[in-house]
Amino acid sequence: QFLTDMMDTTTDVGRGLLSIYKKFDRIQISGYLQPQFQVASKKGAESFNGGNFAPQSNNRFSLRRGRLRFDYVRLNDHDQPSVHLVFQVDGTERGLFVRDFWGRYFENKWQLFSFTAGLFARPFGYEVNLGSPDRESPERGRMSQLLMRTERDLGVMASFEPRRKNHPLRYFKLDIGAFNGQGLSGPGEYDSYKDIIGRLSLKPYPVTERLSVSAGVSLLQGGFIQNTKYVYTTSNNNGKKEFVVDSSEDNLYSEAPREYRGVDMQWKLKHAWGATELRGEYWWGTQTATANDTETPGLLLTTPYYIRKFNGAFFYFLQNIVNKKHQLGVKYDWYDPNTEVKGKEIGAAGNNITAANIRYDTWSFGYNYYIDEHLKLMLWYDIVKNESTSLPAYLSNKSTNVFTCRLQFRF
Amino acid sequence: QFLTDMMDTTTDVGRGLLSIYKKFDRIQISGYLQPQFQVASKKGAESFNGGNFAPQSNNRFSLRRGRLRFDYVRLNDHDQPSVHLVFQVDGTERGLFVRDFWGRYFENKWQLFSFTAGLFARPFGYEVNLGSPDRESPERGRMSQLLMRTERDLGVMASFEPRRKNHPLRYFKLDIGAFNGQGLSGPGEYDSYKDIIGRLSLKPYPVTERLSVSAGVSLLQGGFIQNTKYVYTTSNNNGKKEFVVDSSEDNLYSEAPREYRGVDMQWKLKHAWGATELRGEYWWGTQTATANDTETPGLLLTTPYYIRKFNGAFFYFLQNIVNKKHQLGVKYDWYDPNTEVKGKEIGAAGNNITAANIRYDTWSFGYNYYIDEHLKLMLWYDIVKNESTSLPAYLSNKSTNVFTCRLQFRF
Amino acid sequence: QFLTDMMDTTTDVGRGLLSIYKKFDRIQISGYLQPQFQVASKKGAESFNGGNFAPQSNNRFSLRRGRLRFDYVRLNDHDQPSVHLVFQVDGTERGLFVRDFWGRYFENKWQLFSFTAGLFARPFGYEVNLGSPDRESPERGRMSQLLMRTERDLGVMASFEPRRKNHPLRYFKLDIGAFNGQGLSGPGEYDSYKDIIGRLSLKPYPVTERLSVSAGVSLLQGGFIQNTKYVYTTSNNNGKKEFVVDSSEDNLYSEAPREYRGVDMQWKLKHAWGATELRGEYWWGTQTATANDTETPGLLLTTPYYIRKFNGAFFYFLQNIVNKKHQLGVKYDWYDPNTEVKGKEIGAAGNNITAANIRYDTWSFGYNYYIDEHLKLMLWYDIVKNESTSLPAYLSNKSTNVFTCRLQFRF
Repeated sequence: QFLTDMMDTTTDVGRGLLSIYKKFDRIQISGYLQPQFQVASKKGAESFNGGNFAPQSNNRFSLRRGRLRFDYVRLNDHDQPSVHLVFQVDGTERGLFVRDFWGRYFENKWQLFSFTAGLFARPFGYEVNLGSPDRESPERGRMSQLLMRTERDLGVMASFEPRRKNHPLRYFKLDIGAFNGQGLSGPGEYDSYKDIIGRLSLKPYPVTERLSVSAGVSLLQGGFIQNTKYVYTTSNNNGKKEFVVDSSEDNLYSEAPREYRGVDMQWKLKHAWGATELRGEYWWGTQTATANDTETPGLLLTTPYYIRKFNGAFFYFLQNIVNKKHQLGVKYDWYDPNTEVKGKEIGAAGNNITAANIRYDTWSFGYNYYIDEHLKLMLWYDIVKNESTSLPAYLSNKSTNVFTCRLQFRF
Repeated sequence: QFLTDMMDTTTDVGRGLLSIYKKFDRIQISGYLQPQFQVASKKGAESFNGGNFAPQSNNRFSLRRGRLRFDYVRLNDHDQPSVHLVFQVDGTERGLFVRDFWGRYFENKWQLFSFTAGLFARPFGYEVNLGSPDRESPERGRMSQLLMRTERDLGVMASFEPRRKNHPLRYFKLDIGAFNGQGLSGPGEYDSYKDIIGRLSLKPYPVTERLSVSAGVSLLQGGFIQNTKYVYTTSNNNGKKEFVVDSSEDNLYSEAPREYRGVDMQWKLKHAWGATELRGEYWWGTQTATANDTETPGLLLTTPYYIRKFNGAFFYFLQNIVNKKHQLGVKYDWYDPNTEVKGKEIGAAGNNITAANIRYDTWSFGYNYYIDEHLKLMLWYDIVKNESTSLPAYLSNKSTNVFTCRLQFRF
Repeated sequence: QFLTDMMDTTTDVGRGLLSIYKKFDRIQISGYLQPQFQVASKKGAESFNGGNFAPQSNNRFSLRRGRLRFDYVRLNDHDQPSVHLVFQVDGTERGLFVRDFWGRYFENKWQLFSFTAGLFARPFGYEVNLGSPDRESPERGRMSQLLMRTERDLGVMASFEPRRKNHPLRYFKLDIGAFNGQGLSGPGEYDSYKDIIGRLSLKPYPVTERLSVSAGVSLLQGGFIQNTKYVYTTSNNNGKKEFVVDSSEDNLYSEAPREYRGVDMQWKLKHAWGATELRGEYWWGTQTATANDTETPGLLLTTPYYIRKFNGAFFYFLQNIVNKKHQLGVKYDWYDPNTEVKGKEIGAAGNNITAANIRYDTWSFGYNYYIDEHLKLMLWYDIVKNESTSLPAYLSNKSTNVFTCRLQFRF
C-alpha cells in the first residue's frame, strides 16, 4: 500500500507453484523488434517509410520498432474475461515512447459489450488497426500517417461484439468512441472539442470453404479549435483555382472540421500454396491543417487554417508461392490532400496553393520470407510518384524510391 | 557476463517448472492505469488536479498515471527477506518516467533494521507515502505537490521496524535518511547540501476490536545553496508587511533553509457497511524559493531567494455506504505559503508580495465505486478558493473548480 | 493481430501450469541498480566517473545505472537455441533510455555461426564488452567513453563461435559487423558511410589447472562524412608542432577516417583466497573530431574537422583477500588523444593545439565487497592527472580526484 512497502513474501516453497500460476497465468509478456537497412535513391530523401533520410545520408541502419508489451487478463468465476489491461512501450535509438496503455471492461451478462479507456488505436479503417508485426508491408500508407500519426488517441470506446459462438450477429462488430483528437502528435488536449470515431465491421465470413470476406465502414466526425480568424478554402474563380480567406470574427474559437469516411473490404482465398489475398480501402473527407502541411496539428496553431477535401486509398495483393513461408506482395496507395486542385494548378501564380496540396501515388513490391514463427525477412521496394505541378521544385516527379531490408524478431 | 552473451539455456524441459519457479517466484509484476475525463469551470484553468488545462481547453481525456512495476525479493535460507528491489516506470501521453528504482537490504540477526538506497519516496508525512492506486482522492494536496513534487528523491535511508510478531516495539517504525534534495524536479544534484528526513510512526494500533489508530511525526531538515547574495524575508515595518532584502556577501553560497515539520493521525472504525475513516495531517516550517513561486527549485537559481514560513494541512473523511463497494469522501486541504502575510496585505503597493504568497483552500467531494479488485470508478469534484488580495488578478476568488471522472485499472 | 484485440485466454486452469511453462520458460527477467554517493576534490569537477559534477556541487547521490532486461530464447526441437531476443532499458533520474535491443539467429546445421541485428555493443576490445554489473571498477576508461560512448551501435554482425563441446576451434570466437557509426551519441545515421568492426578472441584457455588466459585483437575501420572542406592535421614545421589546414574542395563530402586497433590479454590465477587477475588492453589509431573535442561526433558537424593519431590503454590488477567476498583492485588507464604533440607544445602560441589534445592518466584504487549474489559494495578512489601544458588553464595538473561509494543490487 505504501510506496516503500515490501511485497508480500509469505509464500512458502510448497505453495510456490500455485502462486506462480496465479501470478503469471494472467500476465503475458510479448514483443517484437524490427532492425532494418534501407537505401534511398538520393541523399536526404523525404520518406514515409521510416521517416526522412538525413541530408547527407542515402542509406541507414535503424531499429524501426522495438516493442515490449504486457497483457493482463482477469477471468471471472466462469472463465470469462472480465478485465483486460495492456501496456506497450516502443523503444528504439530515437527513445522510449508509450504506445498502448489501455484497460477494457467486459460485461458478462449478455456477453455482447465491452468498454475501453486510455490510450489506444482509433477504431477507423483496416490498415490502421492491423498491428505492425502482422502487416505484410513495412509501413502504413502515407494518408494514414498524416491524418492519424501513431494511430492512437486518448479516449473511451464502447464496443459491441458477441462473444457467444452461436450469436446471430457473431460476424459483426461495432466500435464507437470519443477521443481528444490530437493523439500522440502532441503532448495533450489543447482544446475542448472531441472527435467521435466509429467503425462497423464484418469479421472474416466464410463465403465458401476456401474463400472468406471481411469489410468495414468507418467514420470520424470531429474537429479542433480555430485559434485565428483566418480560414482558407479552395475556390474556383472563373476557372482559376485559389485559396481564398474567410476572416470573419466568428471564425475565432469555432470548430475547424475534421471529418473522415472510410470503406474497406478484404478477400482471402486459401489454396495449396497458402493463400491469395486482396484488400482495398478508400477514405475521403475534410481535413483542416496549415498552408504548408496537411498533417493533423498536434499543438494549438498560431497560423491561418486551411480546410481541404481529400481522398486516398490503400490496396494490397498478397500471394504465397510454393508454400506459406514465401509471400509476394504488391501494395498501391495514393493520397490526394486536396481533391479540388490538380497538376499545374498547384503553384500557379498567386494562387497560394503550396506543395502540401500535391497528390502522391506509391507502388510497393515486396517479398516476405517467414523463416519461423519468430523470425521474418522482408524485402520491399517503394516507388513514389508526385504530380507534376507549376511549383519550381515539383515540375516533374521528384520523389525518392526506397529499398528496405527488414528482419522482424517476435516473441 | 558480456553484453551480447546468450542467456543460459541449459535448462531442459524436465527441470523446466522448477526453473520457472526459481526465476519467477521472486519476481512480481504489477501495474495500474488511470484514464480520466475532466471538466474545469473555465478554459486554461490552473489546477493541481492533473496539471493546468491548456489555454483553450476546459475538458480533456488524459492518462493520469500508467504504472508498470517489477519487484524482486530474495529470501534467505530461513525464508526471511534479504534483498528487495523495485523498478517502477510511469508511462502516459506525456512520456515515460522513472518513479521508484530502489534496493533494500534487510539485516536478519535482530530482524529490526533495513537499509534502502536509490530513488524512493521521502519518509515524510502520511499522504505523501500513500500510493496513488490506494489513495481515495484523485491527487495529493497542493502543499505536498509544491514542496515535494513526485515525492521521490535520491538518497539512502535506515529503517527500524521490528519484524518479529511479538516484539514489544512492533507497532513502531522509524525511518531516517539523507537525500539530494531536489528529487525528480531537476535532472540531478546541483549543490553539496543534503536533506535529512525522518519519520517516526505508530502503525495501525487496535484500540478496540473495531477501532484502530495510527499516527506519525515527520521532520525534514535541509536546504540548498544560495547562488546570489540577495535573500528576501518577510518583514513587519510599522505594521506594513513587505519583503526586505539582505544582500550581505556572506549569503553567497551559504545554505538557504528548507525545514519542514509534520504531524499526522488516522482513525478507522469498522462497521457493518464497511468502515469510517478520519485522517488529519498538519505541516509547518520554512521554505526557500523565488519571488513568484514557492515550489522547491529543481535547478540552481539565478534569481533572488525568498524565505517564507508556511503551513498547511490535509483532512480526509471517508465513509462506506451500504457495503464496502461504495464509498463517499470529503477532503479538505489548505496551503498557506507565507503565514506572515494575509489577504489585502498581498500585493499592496510596493511591498513585493506576489501571488506566490496567496493561501489556497480546497474542498473535494467524491464517490468511489470499487467494481472489483481490479477496477475502480472515482467521481470527485474539487472546489478551490484563494484569498482575496490587493493584486488586481486576485481581488476575489479566481480559482477554478474541477470535476474528475477516473477509472482505475489495476493488476 | 489487431491493435486492440484481446489476448488469447482459452487456457483453462488444468492446462495452466503447462501454459505458464511455455510462456515463461523462454523469458528471463533480470536487472540491476547502482545507487552511489560520490565526493569530488572540488566543486564542478569534470569527471568520467558518472559525468561532470554540477558547478556548485562536490558531492552527490545518483543512480548511476538502473537496468531492466528481458531475454527471450527459442529452442528448436533438439533443444538448441534458435532465436535470442534482448530488450534492455536504462532508467535513472536522468530519464529512460534504450540500451540493448537486438535479435540473434543461430544456424544449427554446423552449430558454428550466428547473426545479430539491432542495437548492440560494438565487438571491439575487452572492457567495452564486459557488462557493467560484472566490471570490478565503477566505470569504463576515459578513452572508450570518448571513442565509443554507451558502447552500442545500430548494425548487423556475423559471429563464428563453435557450440559443439569438442570442436577443435572451440576456444576461438570471431565477430564481424557493419554499423552506422555514431551509435547512441546521436539520434540516427547522418551520413552514408558505415563502420566495419571485428574482433577475434581466444576465450579463457586453461594453461594449467589454476591458470587461464584469454586474449583478443580488434579492428574498427570506418569514418564519417566531412561536411566542410576544412580538415586539420598535426604538422611538424621545423620542430614547431601545429595544426595545419587542408582546404581542398575534394575534402567536402569525402570520408574522414575513424580507424581503431586494439589488442588485449587477461590472466587469471585461482588460489585459496579466490583469484588474482591481470588484464591489459592497448588501443591505437586515428580519430576525427573537432578542434575542442575528440569525442566521436553524434551529429553532422558544421565546424572544421581535426584528424588525430591517438593511443591509450586500460590495465587491471585484481586480488581476492581472505576469501572470494573481498577484492582489492588497481586500475590504470591513459588516453593520449594526439600522440604527435605533448606537454608544453599544447597551447604554444598560435599553434591551434587545444585542451582536447591533452593526455590524461588515471589511477584507481578500490575495494569490492560481494555481500551476496545480489548485493555488492564498491569503494573506489580515482586519481586523475593531466599533462602540464602551455595552456593557461592547464599549466599543471588540474584534474579532480573522485571517491565513489556504490551499492549494486542485482537480480
